[in-house]
Amino acid sequence: MHLEEKMIKSETVYEGLIFNITHDTVLLENENTAFRDVLWHNGGVCVIPVTDNNEIYLVKQFRYPFGTTTREVPAGKLERGESPEICGKRELMEETGFTCRELIDLGEMLPTPAYNSEITHMYLAKGLEFTHQNLDEDEFLDVEKIPLSEAVELVMNGTIRDGKTQIAILKAARILKI
Amino acid sequence: MHLEEKMIKSETVYEGLIFNITHDTVLLENENTAFRDVLWHNGGVCVIPVTDNNEIYLVKQFRYPFGTTTREVPAGKLERGESPEICGKRELMEETGFTCRELIDLGEMLPTPAYNSEITHMYLAKGLEFTHQNLDEDEFLDVEKIPLSEAVELVMNGTIRDGKTQIAILKAARILKI
Repeated sequence: MHLEEKMIKSETVYEGLIFNITHDTVLLENENTAFRDVLWHNGGVCVIPVTDNNEIYLVKQFRYPFGTTTREVPAGKLERGESPEICGKRELMEETGFTCRELIDLGEMLPTPAYNSEITHMYLAKGLEFTHQNLDEDEFLDVEKIPLSEAVELVMNGTIRDGKTQIAILKAARILKI
Repeated sequence: MHLEEKMIKSETVYEGLIFNITHDTVLLENENTAFRDVLWHNGGVCVIPVTDNNEIYLVKQFRYPFGTTTREVPAGKLERGESPEICGKRELMEETGFTCRELIDLGEMLPTPAYNSEITHMYLAKGLEFTHQNLDEDEFLDVEKIPLSEAVELVMNGTIRDGKTQIAILKAARILKI
Protein backbone atom coordinates (compact mmCIF):
# COMPACT_ATOMS: atom_id res chain seq x y z
CA MET A 1 0.00 0.00 0.00
CA HIS A 2 1.19 3.52 -0.75
CA LEU A 3 3.68 4.83 1.86
CA GLU A 4 3.38 1.69 4.03
CA GLU A 5 6.33 -0.37 5.29
CA LYS A 6 5.86 -3.98 6.46
CA MET A 7 8.12 -5.58 9.06
CA ILE A 8 9.76 -8.77 7.77
CA LYS A 9 12.23 -9.36 10.60
CA SER A 10 13.03 -7.74 13.94
CA GLU A 11 16.22 -8.35 15.91
CA THR A 12 16.74 -6.92 19.40
CA VAL A 13 20.33 -5.68 19.47
CA TYR A 14 20.35 -3.89 22.87
CA GLU A 15 18.20 -4.01 25.98
CA GLY A 16 18.98 -0.99 28.09
CA LEU A 17 17.93 0.97 31.14
CA ILE A 18 15.40 3.29 29.51
CA PHE A 19 15.18 1.96 25.96
CA ASN A 20 15.69 -1.10 23.79
CA ILE A 21 17.12 -1.08 20.26
CA THR A 22 15.99 -3.28 17.38
CA HIS A 23 17.48 -3.72 13.92
CA ASP A 24 14.51 -4.46 11.66
CA THR A 25 14.06 -5.38 8.02
CA VAL A 26 11.04 -3.88 6.24
CA LEU A 27 9.34 -4.33 2.88
CA LEU A 28 8.80 -1.04 1.01
CA GLU A 29 5.99 -0.24 -1.40
CA ASN A 30 8.33 -0.83 -4.37
CA GLU A 31 8.97 -4.39 -3.03
CA ASN A 32 12.54 -3.49 -2.07
CA THR A 33 13.70 -4.24 1.47
CA ALA A 34 15.30 -1.71 3.79
CA PHE A 35 16.72 -1.67 7.32
CA ARG A 36 15.23 0.32 10.20
CA ASP A 37 17.14 0.80 13.45
CA VAL A 38 14.60 1.75 16.13
CA LEU A 39 14.83 2.95 19.72
CA TRP A 40 11.81 1.67 21.70
CA HIS A 41 10.87 3.92 24.61
CA ASN A 42 7.92 3.77 27.01
CA GLY A 43 7.06 7.47 26.59
CA GLY A 44 7.33 10.56 28.72
CA VAL A 45 5.40 13.48 30.12
CA CYS A 46 6.25 17.17 30.50
CA VAL A 47 4.40 19.91 32.36
CA ILE A 48 4.72 23.67 32.03
CA PRO A 49 3.70 25.18 35.40
CA VAL A 50 2.20 28.67 34.96
CA THR A 51 1.51 30.99 37.90
CA ASP A 52 -1.45 33.36 38.16
CA ASN A 53 1.00 36.11 37.10
CA ASN A 54 1.98 34.26 33.90
CA GLU A 55 5.38 33.21 35.18
CA ILE A 56 6.69 29.69 34.55
CA TYR A 57 9.04 27.34 36.38
CA LEU A 58 11.89 25.69 34.48
CA VAL A 59 14.45 23.18 35.73
CA LYS A 60 18.13 23.47 34.94
CA GLN A 61 19.88 20.11 34.82
CA PHE A 62 22.96 18.45 33.37
CA ARG A 63 22.38 16.64 30.09
CA TYR A 64 25.14 14.10 29.66
CA PRO A 65 24.93 13.70 25.84
CA PHE A 66 25.77 17.43 25.50
CA GLY A 67 28.11 17.80 28.49
CA THR A 68 26.22 20.88 29.64
CA THR A 69 23.10 22.06 31.45
CA THR A 70 19.82 22.87 29.71
CA ARG A 71 16.69 24.68 30.84
CA GLU A 72 13.62 22.49 30.45
CA VAL A 73 10.06 22.17 31.63
CA PRO A 74 9.64 19.57 34.41
CA ALA A 75 9.42 16.13 32.81
CA GLY A 76 9.93 12.45 33.32
CA LYS A 77 9.46 8.94 32.02
CA LEU A 78 6.11 7.16 32.10
CA GLU A 79 6.13 4.12 34.36
CA ARG A 80 4.56 1.08 32.69
CA GLY A 81 0.77 1.33 33.05
CA GLU A 82 0.88 4.84 34.54
CA SER A 83 -1.51 7.47 33.11
CA PRO A 84 0.17 10.55 31.62
CA GLU A 85 -1.78 12.89 33.96
CA ILE A 86 -0.66 11.03 37.10
CA CYS A 87 2.92 10.95 35.80
CA GLY A 88 2.83 14.68 35.01
CA LYS A 89 1.61 15.59 38.50
CA ARG A 90 4.18 13.28 40.09
CA GLU A 91 7.09 14.74 38.12
CA LEU A 92 5.93 18.32 38.74
CA MET A 93 5.82 17.66 42.49
CA GLU A 94 9.12 15.76 42.61
CA GLU A 95 11.10 18.28 40.57
CA THR A 96 9.59 21.62 41.65
CA GLY A 97 7.53 20.88 44.79
CA PHE A 98 4.29 22.16 43.26
CA THR A 99 0.86 20.58 43.17
CA CYS A 100 -1.67 21.93 40.67
CA ARG A 101 -5.44 22.28 40.62
CA GLU A 102 -5.72 21.97 36.83
CA LEU A 103 -3.83 20.20 34.04
CA ILE A 104 -4.60 21.46 30.51
CA ASP A 105 -3.77 19.00 27.71
CA LEU A 106 -1.21 20.46 25.26
CA GLY A 107 -1.18 17.38 23.02
CA GLU A 108 1.63 15.01 22.19
CA MET A 109 5.09 15.43 20.76
CA LEU A 110 7.01 12.84 18.75
CA PRO A 111 10.64 13.88 19.34
CA THR A 112 12.26 11.86 16.51
CA PRO A 113 9.64 9.74 14.75
CA ALA A 114 12.09 8.44 12.13
CA TYR A 115 13.84 6.14 14.60
CA ASN A 116 12.33 6.55 18.10
CA SER A 117 8.96 5.35 19.40
CA GLU A 118 8.88 7.88 22.27
CA ILE A 119 5.71 9.95 22.66
CA THR A 120 5.93 12.91 25.04
CA HIS A 121 2.59 13.95 26.54
CA MET A 122 2.45 17.69 27.28
CA TYR A 123 0.41 19.60 29.86
CA LEU A 124 0.01 23.12 31.18
CA ALA A 125 -0.42 23.23 34.99
CA LYS A 126 -2.47 25.99 36.63
CA GLY A 127 -3.48 26.64 40.26
CA LEU A 128 0.00 25.92 41.64
CA GLU A 129 0.57 25.36 45.34
CA PHE A 130 4.01 24.77 46.85
CA THR A 131 4.50 21.77 49.13
CA HIS A 132 8.04 20.37 49.01
CA GLN A 133 10.51 19.22 46.35
CA ASN A 134 11.14 15.47 46.41
CA LEU A 135 14.08 14.57 44.16
CA ASP A 136 15.54 11.09 43.86
CA GLU A 137 18.78 10.69 45.80
CA ASP A 138 20.82 10.84 42.60
CA GLU A 139 18.80 13.57 40.84
CA PHE A 140 20.19 17.11 40.77
CA LEU A 141 18.51 20.18 39.32
CA ASP A 142 17.90 23.87 39.97
CA VAL A 143 14.43 25.43 39.68
CA GLU A 144 14.08 28.86 38.04
CA LYS A 145 11.05 31.12 37.72
CA ILE A 146 10.78 33.47 34.71
CA PRO A 147 7.97 35.40 33.05
CA LEU A 148 6.35 33.46 30.20
CA SER A 149 6.96 36.47 27.93
CA GLU A 150 10.71 36.22 28.63
CA ALA A 151 10.62 32.45 28.05
CA VAL A 152 9.09 33.09 24.61
CA GLU A 153 12.01 35.43 23.81
CA LEU A 154 14.49 32.75 24.95
CA VAL A 155 12.81 30.26 22.61
CA MET A 156 12.69 32.66 19.67
CA ASN A 157 16.33 33.78 20.07
CA GLY A 158 17.58 30.18 20.31
CA THR A 159 18.64 30.18 23.98
CA ILE A 160 16.14 27.51 25.05
CA ARG A 161 17.01 24.52 22.88
CA ASP A 162 15.06 21.59 24.37
CA GLY A 163 12.27 20.55 21.99
CA LYS A 164 9.41 19.81 24.41
CA THR A 165 10.22 23.02 26.30
CA GLN A 166 10.03 25.12 23.13
CA ILE A 167 6.66 23.59 22.23
CA ALA A 168 5.22 23.92 25.75
CA ILE A 169 6.26 27.58 25.98
CA LEU A 170 4.99 28.52 22.51
CA LYS A 171 1.67 26.70 23.05
CA ALA A 172 1.18 28.22 26.52
CA ALA A 173 1.92 31.69 25.10
CA ARG A 174 -0.62 31.21 22.30
CA ILE A 175 -3.29 29.94 24.74
CA LEU A 176 -2.62 32.79 27.19
CA LYS A 177 -2.29 35.36 24.35
CA ILE A 178 1.25 36.40 25.30
CA MET B 1 30.91 20.68 40.53
CA HIS B 2 27.20 21.40 41.01
CA LEU B 3 25.00 19.59 38.42
CA GLU B 4 28.00 18.17 36.55
CA GLU B 5 28.45 14.49 35.64
CA LYS B 6 31.88 13.07 34.77
CA MET B 7 32.31 10.10 32.45
CA ILE B 8 34.22 7.24 34.10
CA LYS B 9 33.72 4.56 31.49
CA SER B 10 32.09 4.33 28.05
CA GLU B 11 31.18 1.10 26.29
CA THR B 12 29.85 1.00 22.73
CA VAL B 13 27.01 -1.53 22.73
CA TYR B 14 25.64 -0.99 19.19
CA GLU B 15 26.95 0.56 16.00
CA GLY B 16 24.04 1.14 13.67
CA LEU B 17 23.01 2.73 10.41
CA ILE B 18 22.13 6.19 11.69
CA PHE B 19 23.20 6.07 15.33
CA ASN B 20 25.51 4.34 17.80
CA ILE B 21 24.61 3.41 21.37
CA THR B 22 26.94 3.58 24.37
CA HIS B 23 26.41 2.38 27.93
CA ASP B 24 28.37 4.83 30.10
CA THR B 25 29.21 5.11 33.77
CA VAL B 26 29.27 8.62 35.25
CA LEU B 27 30.29 10.19 38.55
CA LEU B 28 27.60 12.41 40.08
CA GLU B 29 28.14 15.48 42.27
CA ASN B 30 27.35 13.40 45.40
CA GLU B 31 30.22 11.02 44.42
CA ASN B 32 27.75 8.23 43.57
CA THR B 33 28.03 6.56 40.18
CA ALA B 34 25.16 6.16 37.71
CA PHE B 35 24.64 4.62 34.27
CA ARG B 36 23.79 6.61 31.15
CA ASP B 37 22.59 4.90 27.97
CA VAL B 38 23.15 7.33 25.10
CA LEU B 39 22.18 7.38 21.43
CA TRP B 40 24.84 9.24 19.44
CA HIS B 41 23.51 10.88 16.27
CA ASN B 42 25.18 13.17 13.74
CA GLY B 43 22.37 15.73 13.77
CA GLY B 44 19.64 16.79 11.39
CA VAL B 45 18.10 19.74 9.63
CA CYS B 46 14.49 20.72 8.96
CA VAL B 47 13.09 23.49 6.78
CA ILE B 48 9.63 25.04 6.80
CA PRO B 49 9.00 26.35 3.26
CA VAL B 50 6.66 29.38 3.30
CA THR B 51 5.12 30.83 0.13
CA ASP B 52 4.50 34.54 -0.51
CA ASN B 53 0.85 33.83 0.46
CA ASN B 54 1.83 32.36 3.85
CA GLU B 55 1.17 28.77 2.84
CA ILE B 56 3.57 26.00 3.85
CA TYR B 57 4.58 22.66 2.37
CA LEU B 58 4.54 19.54 4.56
CA VAL B 59 5.54 16.00 3.69
CA LYS B 60 3.47 12.98 4.64
CA GLN B 61 5.53 9.86 5.13
CA PHE B 62 5.40 6.51 6.89
CA ARG B 63 7.10 6.43 10.29
CA TYR B 64 7.95 2.84 11.09
CA PRO B 65 8.20 3.17 14.92
CA PHE B 66 4.53 4.28 14.95
CA GLY B 67 3.22 2.14 12.08
CA THR B 68 1.53 5.17 10.57
CA THR B 69 2.11 8.28 8.49
CA THR B 70 2.90 11.68 9.97
CA ARG B 71 2.90 15.19 8.52
CA GLU B 72 6.27 16.86 8.95
CA VAL B 73 8.35 19.70 7.61
CA PRO B 74 10.95 18.57 5.05
CA ALA B 75 13.98 17.26 6.93
CA GLY B 76 16.99 15.02 6.78
CA LYS B 77 20.21 13.86 8.36
CA LEU B 78 23.38 15.91 8.26
CA GLU B 79 26.13 14.23 6.28
CA ARG B 80 29.45 14.29 8.11
CA GLY B 81 31.10 17.69 7.55
CA GLU B 82 28.07 19.15 5.77
CA SER B 83 26.85 22.62 6.83
CA PRO B 84 23.27 22.76 8.13
CA GLU B 85 22.30 25.38 5.50
CA ILE B 86 23.55 23.23 2.60
CA CYS B 87 21.80 20.18 4.08
CA GLY B 88 18.56 22.11 4.53
CA LYS B 89 18.56 23.32 0.91
CA ARG B 90 19.39 19.81 -0.31
CA GLU B 91 16.59 18.14 1.67
CA LEU B 92 14.08 20.83 0.67
CA MET B 93 14.91 20.27 -3.00
CA GLU B 94 14.97 16.46 -2.79
CA GLU B 95 11.68 16.13 -0.89
CA THR B 96 9.58 18.96 -2.33
CA GLY B 97 11.38 20.12 -5.49
CA PHE B 98 11.76 23.69 -4.26
CA THR B 99 14.79 25.93 -4.21
CA CYS B 100 14.71 29.01 -1.99
CA ARG B 101 16.21 32.50 -2.16
CA GLU B 102 16.43 32.94 1.61
CA LEU B 103 16.92 30.66 4.66
CA ILE B 104 16.01 32.25 8.01
CA ASP B 105 17.61 30.59 11.06
CA LEU B 106 14.96 29.30 13.50
CA GLY B 107 17.52 27.99 15.99
CA GLU B 108 18.19 24.48 17.19
CA MET B 109 16.04 21.78 18.77
CA LEU B 110 17.29 19.04 21.09
CA PRO B 111 14.65 16.31 20.61
CA THR B 112 15.47 14.19 23.69
CA PRO B 113 18.51 15.62 25.49
CA ALA B 114 18.31 13.09 28.34
CA TYR B 115 19.60 10.24 26.19
CA ASN B 116 20.15 11.45 22.60
CA SER B 117 22.91 13.69 21.22
CA GLU B 118 20.89 14.73 18.14
CA ILE B 119 20.64 18.45 17.39
CA THR B 120 18.07 19.45 14.76
CA HIS B 121 18.86 22.73 13.01
CA MET B 122 15.71 24.58 11.94
CA TYR B 123 15.16 27.04 9.09
CA LEU B 124 12.37 28.98 7.43
CA ALA B 125 12.67 29.04 3.62
CA LYS B 126 11.35 32.03 1.63
CA GLY B 127 11.45 32.88 -2.07
CA LEU B 128 10.47 29.39 -3.20
CA GLU B 129 10.90 28.29 -6.82
CA PHE B 130 9.80 24.87 -8.09
CA THR B 131 12.33 22.81 -10.05
CA HIS B 132 11.83 19.05 -9.60
CA GLN B 133 11.49 16.58 -6.74
CA ASN B 134 14.45 14.24 -6.44
CA LEU B 135 13.70 11.45 -3.96
CA ASP B 136 16.01 8.54 -3.26
CA GLU B 137 14.89 5.32 -4.99
CA ASP B 138 13.58 3.88 -1.70
CA GLU B 139 12.09 7.13 -0.31
CA PHE B 140 8.31 7.61 -0.49
CA LEU B 141 6.39 10.69 0.60
CA ASP B 142 3.49 12.94 -0.43
CA VAL B 143 3.80 16.73 -0.46
CA GLU B 144 0.88 18.84 0.84
CA LYS B 145 0.36 22.61 0.80
CA ILE B 146 -1.70 24.22 3.57
CA PRO B 147 -2.13 27.78 4.88
CA LEU B 148 0.20 28.50 7.82
CA SER B 149 -2.84 29.61 9.84
CA GLU B 150 -4.40 26.16 9.37
CA ALA B 151 -1.10 24.48 10.28
CA VAL B 152 -1.09 26.42 13.56
CA GLU B 153 -4.58 25.07 14.30
CA LEU B 154 -3.40 21.51 13.54
CA VAL B 155 -0.53 22.00 16.00
CA MET B 156 -2.72 23.52 18.70
CA ASN B 157 -5.43 20.82 18.41
CA GLY B 158 -2.89 17.99 18.55
CA THR B 159 -3.21 16.73 14.97
CA ILE B 160 0.38 17.55 13.99
CA ARG B 161 2.46 15.55 16.47
CA ASP B 162 6.03 15.72 15.16
CA GLY B 163 8.15 17.86 17.46
CA LYS B 164 10.33 19.78 14.98
CA THR B 165 7.24 20.44 12.85
CA GLN B 166 5.32 21.92 15.80
CA ILE B 167 8.24 24.20 16.65
CA ALA B 168 8.85 25.30 13.05
CA ILE B 169 5.16 26.12 12.54
CA LEU B 170 4.78 28.00 15.85
CA LYS B 171 8.02 29.96 15.29
CA ALA B 172 7.10 30.82 11.68
CA ALA B 173 3.63 31.96 12.83
CA ARG B 174 5.15 34.19 15.52
CA ILE B 175 7.67 35.70 13.07
CA LEU B 176 4.99 36.27 10.41
CA LYS B 177 2.44 37.46 13.02
CA ILE B 178 -0.13 34.78 12.18
